[in-house]
Amino acid sequence: MSDAWLEQIKWTADGLVPAIAQDHTTGRILMLAWMNAESLRLSVAEGRAIYWSRSRQKLWRKGEESGHIQKLHDIRLDCDADTIVLQVEQLGGIACHTGRESCFYLSLQDGQWQVADPVLKAPADIYQGKKP
Amino acid sequence: MSDAWLEQIKWTADGLVPAIAQDHTTGRILMLAWMNAESLRLSVAEGRAIYWSRSRQKLWRKGEESGHIQKLHDIRLDCDADTIVLQVEQLGGIACHTGRESCFYLSLQDGQWQVADPVLKAPADIYQGKKP
Repeated sequence: MSDAWLEQIKWTADGLVPAIAQDHTTGRILMLAWMNAESLRLSVAEGRAIYWSRSRQKLWRKGEESGHIQKLHDIRLDCDADTIVLQVEQLGGIACHTGRESCFYLSLQDGQWQVADPVLKAPADIYQGKKP
Repeated sequence: MSDAWLEQIKWTADGLVPAIAQDHTTGRILMLAWMNAESLRLSVAEGRAIYWSRSRQKLWRKGEESGHIQKLHDIRLDCDADTIVLQVEQLGGIACHTGRESCFYLSLQDGQWQVADPVLKAPADIYQGKKP
């Protein structure tokens, strides 16, 4: 298919767009990561979330070490074309490198960030020395 | 309260953090906007979403013209402390300046961004010449 849909996105000066991953059944927001055009094109082609790691400056095939792949069900773009939502099936039920369902496990309570969600699986058991 | 919770956030070089607004009952992702420390502090103090408008370079009290205020129910921070989720009650049921529930109304179908959600109220009726 043509790349017009990619060109309609307002990329940052660094050529990135923020992508919010959401569980397609529960609606839980799992994480926010960044994509460049290549990672978004590959995500669509392969039907799974592939991000651009800003810290490692390389493609990040989510789940490549943990097995916690995110299968794509829908991709949404917002009204000003600068943010994406990925509706995903989160394999393993764990998106966060801490072993939690969601990266958003800290809740502001009484002026402090408090851990509000349980660890479902110990990171050492998920990664066994590998990277998230 | 002390500002330690604000200092724990990893602000961008511009002093901002992306904030995802989500309907606290349906889970629908409504929009992504940006906050600076002042707007986040005010949001907590007033119990409603107040963003930083990057285009206008000023505080953006969501709903100030439309009445479509976002009442805060929970604020979440992610594992690397660089993104926030706001669980909100969206007054009027409309977050988007196009008159739709959510800003994420474009769905990628067959290689094109297709409008997937209806306009609930005409923008002219919402704003009557005012700004979103």
